[in-house]
Amino acid sequence: MIVNMSEKATEREIAHVIERIREAGYQPHVTRGVERTIVAAVGNGRRHEIEALLVAPGVENVVAIAQPFKLVSRQVKPERSVVNVGGVLIGGPGVVIIAGPCSVESREQLLSTAHAVKRAGATMLRGGAYKPRTSPYDFQGLGLEALKILREAREQSGLPVVTEVMSTEDVDVICEHVDMLQVGARNMQNFALLRRLATVSKPVLLKRGPSATVKEWLLAAEYLLSGGNSQVVLCERGIKTFETEMRNTFDLAAVALARDLSHLPVIADPSHGTGKQSLIAAVSRAAVAVGADGLIIEVHPCQSLDFAGFEKVMKAIAEPLRRAAIPV
Amino acid sequence: MIVNMSEKATEREIAHVIERIREAGYQPHVTRGVERTIVAAVGNGRRHEIEALLVAPGVENVVAIAQPFKLVSRQVKPERSVVNVGGVLIGGPGVVIIAGPCSVESREQLLSTAHAVKRAGATMLRGGAYKPRTSPYDFQGLGLEALKILREAREQSGLPVVTEVMSTEDVDVICEHVDMLQVGARNMQNFALLRRLATVSKPVLLKRGPSATVKEWLLAAEYLLSGGNSQVVLCERGIKTFETEMRNTFDLAAVALARDLSHLPVIADPSHGTGKQSLIAAVSRAAVAVGADGLIIEVHPCQSLDFAGFEKVMKAIAEPLRRAAIPV
Amino acid sequence: MIVNMSEKATEREIAHVIERIREAGYQPHVTRGVERTIVAAVGNGRRHEIEALLVAPGVENVVAIAQPFKLVSRQVKPERSVVNVGGVLIGGPGVVIIAGPCSVESREQLLSTAHAVKRAGATMLRGGAYKPRTSPYDFQGLGLEALKILREAREQSGLPVVTEVMSTEDVDVICEHVDMLQVGARNMQNFALLRRLATVSKPVLLKRGPSATVKEWLLAAEYLLSGGNSQVVLCERGIKTFETEMRNTFDLAAVALARDLSHLPVIADPSHGTGKQSLIAAVSRAAVAVGADGLIIEVHPCQSLDFAGFEKVMKAIAEPLRRAAIPV
Amino acid sequence: MIVNMSEKATEREIAHVIERIREAGYQPHVTRGVERTIVAAVGNGRRHEIEALLVAPGVENVVAIAQPFKLVSRQVKPERSVVNVGGVLIGGPGVVIIAGPCSVESREQLLSTAHAVKRAGATMLRGGAYKPRTSPYDFQGLGLEALKILREAREQSGLPVVTEVMSTEDVDVICEHVDMLQVGARNMQNFALLRRLATVSKPVLLKRGPSATVKEWLLAAEYLLSGGNSQVVLCERGIKTFETEMRNTFDLAAVALARDLSHLPVIADPSHGTGKQSLIAAVSRAAVAVGADGLIIEVHPCQSLDFAGFEKVMKAIAEPLRRAAIPV
Repeated sequence: MIVNMSEKATEREIAHVIERIREAGYQPHVTRGVERTIVAAVGNGRRHEIEALLVAPGVENVVAIAQPFKLVSRQVKPERSVVNVGGVLIGGPGVVIIAGPCSVESREQLLSTAHAVKRAGATMLRGGAYKPRTSPYDFQGLGLEALKILREAREQSGLPVVTEVMSTEDVDVICEHVDMLQVGARNMQNFALLRRLATVSKPVLLKRGPSATVKEWLLAAEYLLSGGNSQVVLCERGIKTFETEMRNTFDLAAVALARDLSHLPVIADPSHGTGKQSLIAAVSRAAVAVGADGLIIEVHPCQSLDFAGFEKVMKAIAEPLRRAAIPV
Repeated sequence: MIVNMSEKATEREIAHVIERIREAGYQPHVTRGVERTIVAAVGNGRRHEIEALLVAPGVENVVAIAQPFKLVSRQVKPERSVVNVGGVLIGGPGVVIIAGPCSVESREQLLSTAHAVKRAGATMLRGGAYKPRTSPYDFQGLGLEALKILREAREQSGLPVVTEVMSTEDVDVICEHVDMLQVGARNMQNFALLRRLATVSKPVLLKRGPSATVKEWLLAAEYLLSGGNSQVVLCERGIKTFETEMRNTFDLAAVALARDLSHLPVIADPSHGTGKQSLIAAVSRAAVAVGADGLIIEVHPCQSLDFAGFEKVMKAIAEPLRRAAIPV
Repeated sequence: MIVNMSEKATEREIAHVIERIREAGYQPHVTRGVERTIVAAVGNGRRHEIEALLVAPGVENVVAIAQPFKLVSRQVKPERSVVNVGGVLIGGPGVVIIAGPCSVESREQLLSTAHAVKRAGATMLRGGAYKPRTSPYDFQGLGLEALKILREAREQSGLPVVTEVMSTEDVDVICEHVDMLQVGARNMQNFALLRRLATVSKPVLLKRGPSATVKEWLLAAEYLLSGGNSQVVLCERGIKTFETEMRNTFDLAAVALARDLSHLPVIADPSHGTGKQSLIAAVSRAAVAVGADGLIIEVHPCQSLDFAGFEKVMKAIAEPLRRAAIPV
Repeated sequence: MIVNMSEKATEREIAHVIERIREAGYQPHVTRGVERTIVAAVGNGRRHEIEALLVAPGVENVVAIAQPFKLVSRQVKPERSVVNVGGVLIGGPGVVIIAGPCSVESREQLLSTAHAVKRAGATMLRGGAYKPRTSPYDFQGLGLEALKILREAREQSGLPVVTEVMSTEDVDVICEHVDMLQVGARNMQNFALLRRLATVSKPVLLKRGPSATVKEWLLAAEYLLSGGNSQVVLCERGIKTFETEMRNTFDLAAVALARDLSHLPVIADPSHGTGKQSLIAAVSRAAVAVGADGLIIEVHPCQSLDFAGFEKVMKAIAEPLRRAAIPV
């Protein structure tokens, strides 16, 4: 249930609504927009007591929300959210480019990458310290050592840093070293981890699970917002389908849909989305065209997309769209 | 196997290669590019006899093709194909916009739509005369009556017309009335229909099946080319996945991949791809950005996307991409 | 809409109901059960005129059908249907085993297979004369020659024969030679073919499309029944999913669901369902346990499952289930 | 790499092989079968040093393993594993039936269910204390209170108890109260949780993720075995596909495949696998027929499958299979 306060509602009237929501067995969540304040009643309470608030002073109307997600919904907060990551604004007018290697392998590898991607136009740096691996026999990341290298790369390059968190136990040490914590696709419904991240003061990058519907993805974000952390950025990174020619099916329409349903910024990951280097420039352009607030791209000195390849992608994004409908 | 002739190869040398390919048990397919001629040996024959052509006069080299598709492959024909549909060029520098209703319901409905979409910038008209319906109890199309209306709409508007063909028995009458025949997604592997369409002189629009891999789609096109019809345009229209929020998952990366693997033009269908009117402008922009040679969009005087909605989509496609990487 | 006649309804009362249904703009379909007669009103007509039949003489009640399929529904015909294929009853108390090669390759190959599978307990023979092939360069079947061999195999072995039909043009010649016509998975929604097969007097085996929902499958069967052919057997043969370890995902629960929703017999194809020879015995047992009315199994003298392998599968099906719930 | 010791190999020879494996940079894992001992070299080391063990005393042969999983593979341990859960043997000759409610809601609910399912033949009890919920607003479980009720139910009924663990922080308290810990489908690739459970002395029930391939599932189990816990039971519970009529697609062929590839016991969950009560008896029978070592079934006093429904399922499992191939 959403209680829309009138433009002229006083602080006292708002406080009264909050109290009544609590008495009705719900949790109140207040969103203060430029013009008006909205109070959401979340959880399971006595619905009729909220409906009765329609006649309370300062209340304009009371609306039931059809969608299962509430705080991430544009019904609750129509204006788009902007998330500040170490000074870089995700969700604003610019398209944020996050680039870097899959794993931090060495100080040299990361620093050279940081400088190269910055030169080419990237505004944030990525790099894995703790890696989720399908097999226990694969390299699992350098851990704390990688976090220190990431911190140094940020100091040298000025680029804010994002890295993946896999375990509640690593949350504190990661928060100390980087600017943003990433929840990987396989942990999108690791609810213990989401609950823990709802309590930190750093922004969270929430990847869509490989078989998560857009609704399940938004409900995972709802865990973060309802737990107290509204600095959330969504990331589409491809879903699992029958197609085997590409690593995943990059669901660009889901970027548009998520931005339609939610006020949260949405970025896209063309590297995992396709797994094909030859397609990255084209799908990156498409992601920008569909409305993505940013891109996260895997760049490595000598694997996958290298520095020269990344520069080409950056140029492709800058090109205008072809003209439509002109038979030659 | 592909036999690349040298730039200076004479007609006689080419004829000799063709004959030798035939003797080796293959079918020869000749592609004459601007600079050089390529002769493909398709089917199952004695491979070593083709390899031996390496020393024949006028032959530059002989290459084995790894992909199961041959004539649609860019290995056989590196330059992009352009398909001429009643004067409109698909695969050239412009983005072709095909618009119109799902079904032809009446003369008035179609003529008003033809004029409206032309005014907004469309260059071709679509409209269903024979409709593939999941249920036998749903409207199956006006048939011949619709074909006559389509012909009149083309005469009045000047827009070339495409309509779906469902049965080998309807091929002749459809060819008489329209400019391009569409193979619907559910008939992508109706091989009897493909074989029949390989023999007509009209271009074919081949939709990707809802669970077809990109390779299966290209092999369906190979039926048309190997049977003699090289006027083929591919069309991505969304695939079936676990996601239920949208009608299909619009696989825009497949547009880029199909253009990478094949010289055939590839267009995209945002209407079926998402089934959500609110997303059509965004995904149409993305389709153009990813490299689509055209769009096919459902427009109806009073359902789905109406005339005003279509105009908005056309404007969205014309807008430049947002600037990248500028934190504000 | 379904009009259930009372047990004592006279022929005259039934005829009256049929006439009224026709007047209301629907097509009447009469199903005569052992105890009572049901008249279905299919298509789009004036619903209230059918509802008004509630007070007509001989009518017990009038029921709206929620499902989009009607004539295949158990609401219209609660008793299970039995389809007679050259004397073999599919849908009766026994489990029918259809075995044979993917393609008819030679007289010798087919006759030896027919005798071997009969000896092992098969009651019907399969073999492809016209083959749907992803690539135009693959073997497309022996055609008429294969049909003649199939006819000879039936005469020698006494096993009724089923073969696939891909084109409306081949329907007549196939009907002359075999006992049952198979619609392959890729043609499940080839509506022109379904409409043609609705008019033949031979039974049809309708395979589920690789990405067809159970409802779409039943609606494809509805094309056959509403067109006049009620001798239809459904066949589950695996669906396309993200799993790559097996050729398809064998959807055995769909066998149970289709039998719940429809009165038509349902068989299962473990060969295409898994594509793994080592699993065929296990999944065949499971198909029988889930309620399948038969199995269709690929057997070849020297490929895939050979004669000895097929015997093992037949033995596995005959074994009783393990006892439940006994910790040792 | 797998080193198979000869039947007569002495303890000293085995110890020598273990040492050499360690020196080569691998971790040694010893499996002692009834007749012979197998030593696996896991991780990344110097392969040729292991190959050289072929001539060491007591070594029969050295085999490379093609599959990415090692310790769960039947190549390493051909005999089937039996997991003892509080006296109930999973993987032995009997089919283990685990029944109980989705969530523990109250002492009364659970105790009545425990007695009812035991009476009907169940040999283990399930019940959720910590619930993974798509929405943060749904009931998240009674936690510790539920664990105490589960313990009491076990004491009263004698049925060993399994419950889900969602967080590394809950592992200790859950181990104190129940006999087996379940990893839910959404946590199948929560590697931090898997690593923690590899160190406990209780058996683990590992559900397959809704979009996990069989290989990914076995590799998740490999995390448990390579970390030291070999008491692992796999559980198929349905995968996500395009089909919407059932909650999931129940992949029974995957049960047979997992038992082919791995020595671990495999059970099946027909309740989540289909989400349709009317199908549970049929698919439970199919699961037993395909070779499942057990079933886990949701039973609740007044929701989903109730006590009477559960009795019917138990009877269905006990029925013999229909005879094959008898045309009537």
